[in-house]
Amino acid sequence: MTHKIAILGASGYTGAELVRLIATHPSIEIAALAANSKAGQSMAAVFPHLRHLDLPDLVRIEDIDFTGIDLCFCALPHKTSQEVIAALPRDLRIVDLSADFRLRDPADYEKWYGNPHAAVEMQQEAVYGLTEFYRDEIRSARLVAGTGCNAATGQYVLRPLIAAGVIDLDDIILDLKCGVSGAGRSLKENLLHAELSEGYHAYALGGTHRHLGEFDQEFSAIAGRDVRIQFTPHLIPANRGILATGYVKGEAQTVHDVLAKAYASEPFIEVLPFGEAPSTRHVRGSNFCHIGVTADRIAGRAIVVGALDNLTKGSSGQALQNANLILGEEETAGLMLAPVFP
Amino acid sequence: MTHKIAILGASGYTGAELVRLIATHPSIEIAALAANSKAGQSMAAVFPHLRHLDLPDLVRIEDIDFTGIDLCFCALPHKTSQEVIAALPRDLRIVDLSADFRLRDPADYEKWYGNPHAAVEMQQEAVYGLTEFYRDEIRSARLVAGTGCNAATGQYVLRPLIAAGVIDLDDIILDLKCGVSGAGRSLKENLLHAELSEGYHAYALGGTHRHLGEFDQEFSAIAGRDVRIQFTPHLIPANRGILATGYVKGEAQTVHDVLAKAYASEPFIEVLPFGEAPSTRHVRGSNFCHIGVTADRIAGRAIVVGALDNLTKGSSGQALQNANLILGEEETAGLMLAPVFP
Amino acid sequence: MTHKIAILGASGYTGAELVRLIATHPSIEIAALAANSKAGQSMAAVFPHLRHLDLPDLVRIEDIDFTGIDLCFCALPHKTSQEVIAALPRDLRIVDLSADFRLRDPADYEKWYGNPHAAVEMQQEAVYGLTEFYRDEIRSARLVAGTGCNAATGQYVLRPLIAAGVIDLDDIILDLKCGVSGAGRSLKENLLHAELSEGYHAYALGGTHRHLGEFDQEFSAIAGRDVRIQFTPHLIPANRGILATGYVKGEAQTVHDVLAKAYASEPFIEVLPFGEAPSTRHVRGSNFCHIGVTADRIAGRAIVVGALDNLTKGSSGQALQNANLILGEEETAGLMLAPVFP
Amino acid sequence: MTHKIAILGASGYTGAELVRLIATHPSIEIAALAANSKAGQSMAAVFPHLRHLDLPDLVRIEDIDFTGIDLCFCALPHKTSQEVIAALPRDLRIVDLSADFRLRDPADYEKWYGNPHAAVEMQQEAVYGLTEFYRDEIRSARLVAGTGCNAATGQYVLRPLIAAGVIDLDDIILDLKCGVSGAGRSLKENLLHAELSEGYHAYALGGTHRHLGEFDQEFSAIAGRDVRIQFTPHLIPANRGILATGYVKGEAQTVHDVLAKAYASEPFIEVLPFGEAPSTRHVRGSNFCHIGVTADRIAGRAIVVGALDNLTKGSSGQALQNANLILGEEETAGLMLAPVFP
Repeated sequence: MTHKIAILGASGYTGAELVRLIATHPSIEIAALAANSKAGQSMAAVFPHLRHLDLPDLVRIEDIDFTGIDLCFCALPHKTSQEVIAALPRDLRIVDLSADFRLRDPADYEKWYGNPHAAVEMQQEAVYGLTEFYRDEIRSARLVAGTGCNAATGQYVLRPLIAAGVIDLDDIILDLKCGVSGAGRSLKENLLHAELSEGYHAYALGGTHRHLGEFDQEFSAIAGRDVRIQFTPHLIPANRGILATGYVKGEAQTVHDVLAKAYASEPFIEVLPFGEAPSTRHVRGSNFCHIGVTADRIAGRAIVVGALDNLTKGSSGQALQNANLILGEEETAGLMLAPVFP
Repeated sequence: MTHKIAILGASGYTGAELVRLIATHPSIEIAALAANSKAGQSMAAVFPHLRHLDLPDLVRIEDIDFTGIDLCFCALPHKTSQEVIAALPRDLRIVDLSADFRLRDPADYEKWYGNPHAAVEMQQEAVYGLTEFYRDEIRSARLVAGTGCNAATGQYVLRPLIAAGVIDLDDIILDLKCGVSGAGRSLKENLLHAELSEGYHAYALGGTHRHLGEFDQEFSAIAGRDVRIQFTPHLIPANRGILATGYVKGEAQTVHDVLAKAYASEPFIEVLPFGEAPSTRHVRGSNFCHIGVTADRIAGRAIVVGALDNLTKGSSGQALQNANLILGEEETAGLMLAPVFP
Repeated sequence: MTHKIAILGASGYTGAELVRLIATHPSIEIAALAANSKAGQSMAAVFPHLRHLDLPDLVRIEDIDFTGIDLCFCALPHKTSQEVIAALPRDLRIVDLSADFRLRDPADYEKWYGNPHAAVEMQQEAVYGLTEFYRDEIRSARLVAGTGCNAATGQYVLRPLIAAGVIDLDDIILDLKCGVSGAGRSLKENLLHAELSEGYHAYALGGTHRHLGEFDQEFSAIAGRDVRIQFTPHLIPANRGILATGYVKGEAQTVHDVLAKAYASEPFIEVLPFGEAPSTRHVRGSNFCHIGVTADRIAGRAIVVGALDNLTKGSSGQALQNANLILGEEETAGLMLAPVFP
Repeated sequence: MTHKIAILGASGYTGAELVRLIATHPSIEIAALAANSKAGQSMAAVFPHLRHLDLPDLVRIEDIDFTGIDLCFCALPHKTSQEVIAALPRDLRIVDLSADFRLRDPADYEKWYGNPHAAVEMQQEAVYGLTEFYRDEIRSARLVAGTGCNAATGQYVLRPLIAAGVIDLDDIILDLKCGVSGAGRSLKENLLHAELSEGYHAYALGGTHRHLGEFDQEFSAIAGRDVRIQFTPHLIPANRGILATGYVKGEAQTVHDVLAKAYASEPFIEVLPFGEAPSTRHVRGSNFCHIGVTADRIAGRAIVVGALDNLTKGSSGQALQNANLILGEEETAGLMLAPVFP
């Protein structure tokens, strides 16, 4: 059985990545592609690397007939997303890739995003899309909220440790290094090649990055008490990749055992042998996440490093993984592509 | 039916690329992986990006039992390749990725590679592996010689034009820009990141690059007379990609029409609309080749640009395409992966 | 004696490069920096790498008092430049880095830039700024028109050959590879890191690049007849650098001798030993231009390759070299900085 | 007065960087350049970017006549350095860039470098070369030991804080991101462009990096008690640059004030306004170090980020700064070059 899907926001990087992945999916058909600013154009004009595929032309969202669409991916900017989704048919199943439905508490949303939420009811209906931890809820969800790409990486590294109670909850530091495509295709001076290439820096220092809202919500829920981590992202001159270096206080071998056990049967999360460290280059273009644990020379401290591809496991791959669950397909369908190296 | 294959030279980039592609192939199973210098190691240790695959450990070539192997990919350095292949079972079907069997004439081989050929009989038996032009011979070949990656790009751009007689054969210039992985994983000072990154240069100037042997052989055969082109490669700070800019004397619209017609039913060669130009970024990680034709402001001159990924269409993808033909599989099996962008 | 200068358009890359170079100049003082869109900001806010310098804040052009300014660098976008310069004091000496005064013929200007020239009188007064060939005129000029960065590279490679009559004027091909900063700091999708990095392509194919106007003007003037070359630029994922590969018909050793002799006493142009080829990485950040000549395997054809840094020798370094001439200073003052490698 | 100097190990990156800097120095003359593996070659052959300079050819160390040499830079690999230096004239003033004389305690040296020190007496004579903190000792030193590039960055960020007692000494984390050239010009698979480009990873995790020996020695000396920090370096795909992100427990504004005061009169250390963060791109190619301090959202915690160029301030620039002190020259001579951006 073939499922028909639509992608709203198909002219951005996560939209293109969805198309790339779905192109190898055995039972999903792309019925509609929307991008209001580029409506009327062919996908090949906007993304020449997809030229060989037989795809519908880009249309405006309001011109899509959602009858017969089994699931809709929404890869729009945040704020736009909630407005668009509020206007979609109420029975349409949706996997949203924006930030709009990640935070369950309207006050939290407003705190981190600066505006009141325009679809509070849906916000509370949405299931948080970190597949490995919300699998059952996602299967029966109508609206799944894709996680932040940094938030996903940090949670893969830390959730099992917080759940198992093996690290100090008051002293967690996450130093994150992310590639450029995480910022999307927007025209900003600091994203120009001449600005970025051959240099790197920290940004959103001191706890101001919005993905902290997700960490606070999720980690506190797991721990049953408020958890606040330190989180500093850095922008690295590479297109794809997130590397999260977590500094935790806990016994390193225990930390490794907890992670290894937690992910033992997960198809996409690989915990490396104790003492090995992952690299973003070894997950590029794939839905895999590699995690490594090392003991620090100071007893009782461990370093946990996670690596994934922000556009795949951090965004569009995750979205397809969730769509597979909703549609009753094999969870790994279309997602077992090996990383591209070099 | 599943075909069992072996890969000799699995610790290099083309070996890894073969594994990546075959991993999605519906009917090929990797039965043996050899790399003498790294025998005994797991493939995950040598190429962590393939960690999720269930692969045999690396062995020495002499430890492979070729009984039951349907086809052998040989991704060894040139010169080593001819020695190894000469010692393999005589009925084993082989797709060689090295330079050793590309030139049919032993004198040509010695001229370009500096040593007498050690397996002259096989050299003459080998079929040149440019799939689109040797499809029938490849289907029934025992030994297929993969083309040079630069040679493939240049031929896609020029062969139909030479065959059709629509360009001046005495005035063809091919200015080629290739990525770094084409030089393989060898330890050379000029391949270090600190040397290469942020700079570029021409090399093998004046007609000394070995792939000219292939151009001379093929173009002369097509034209029925000696054809000698000018060919200057440049090394570009990017990992994958070959861009070949061909300067030809001929009517541009005719040039476009000839190419469009020649490749009209080819699954992997895309001729862009007249006046458009391809980019390596839009074929990265894929088996596609994009070709564009533009008229120069000087009447009677055309610019033909071709782009492909040296590791895929230029090497391992081509090898798998040929293996599919030999094995009686769908020619495109395992090869329709979309390019990875960004 | 210290000369006071102003820089208009100081928030772009060529403006910043001027400041970097002038910072080491023994007798030039920066009296005013203008950038209308960023007026009121400190230079350190716009270019943090210049933070250690004691520089005036950015102002609006109209707020500069030009009394006491000895020379004005104009690093504005073309079209804006001619309007601004027309309104400056008539006795102010100006080195313009834009395209506005490069073409002497108003019809040529309109043909290549699409609009009538707004300061035709000045256009005809301006001296073309290719220092090595217009040194005397520049010394006594009031208005010097900086050359295009691609145009400079191509001319260094070809001018002496055309002047000496040692190459076929009807068959010159210039295949050029330029870095990203040549496109400036403008917000265009194709200049984003995620778009550019790891890929490359040809653009402005077929003779549509505006720098052809300069080639046509200059080469025809030297030859005393119309000369039209083929010129195809390619965008390379590196920030600085232009590599021009010239394909000419002429005897290679003669070509080398002519170039070596022409530049024998030039402080910034280095002709490499016959058979060697230059690299952009070896001129990065400097005012040097390296040129190499190789014989092709086809008798009577030569390949001439030139390399320079588009922001320095191709633009701001050239501008300072010209300013030195105008101000009566040592031509090399502030310009002998060695390239930065790696 | 002109000082004659020699550089031993001139074919590596730090040797080349020394030459680049000294080329603009008003009173230092390069009298001899040694590189045993490339003896007999011209410097232009080994480093074409230095082609315009009039430099002595490379010779073997044993062929240098040290009579008349005022100071010798030693840019050799560690272990080789101590052997070579032990054999130099006893009255020759030496600035060593290797790791050999950084640790004062022979036991510490053996612990971190794995072999007994071959010149223990000199090891104890050597002055640690972190200029800003050992200025007086360096002025009268015969042998100065250049610091590790990572060690320099970390110390600029942390020393004044430890000295002032404003941070918790038992909970200091230094997450460091370094560029590729820090690993030198050695032929290692993991330094190839195809391996490194577009990916990044942590290495020497858990407290195994040798520069920790310097941190332990220096921080403990300042604090008057044992200080052990956590230090994890990451390899970033950029040629130059070190970014050190320090996580400390202390009041952020106090942290900023202490740093600002400590470096107020330093010519090369710039403390940014509170809340701003530095970037490696803004110090590239220069001797400057930028430091920024931000408060974390968790009260009592601060993030201190330092950026410098590993080859300049982290190595060769530091060496020249120290040589200036020894030679009685202006400390900043030859070192005020502005960073190269973009």
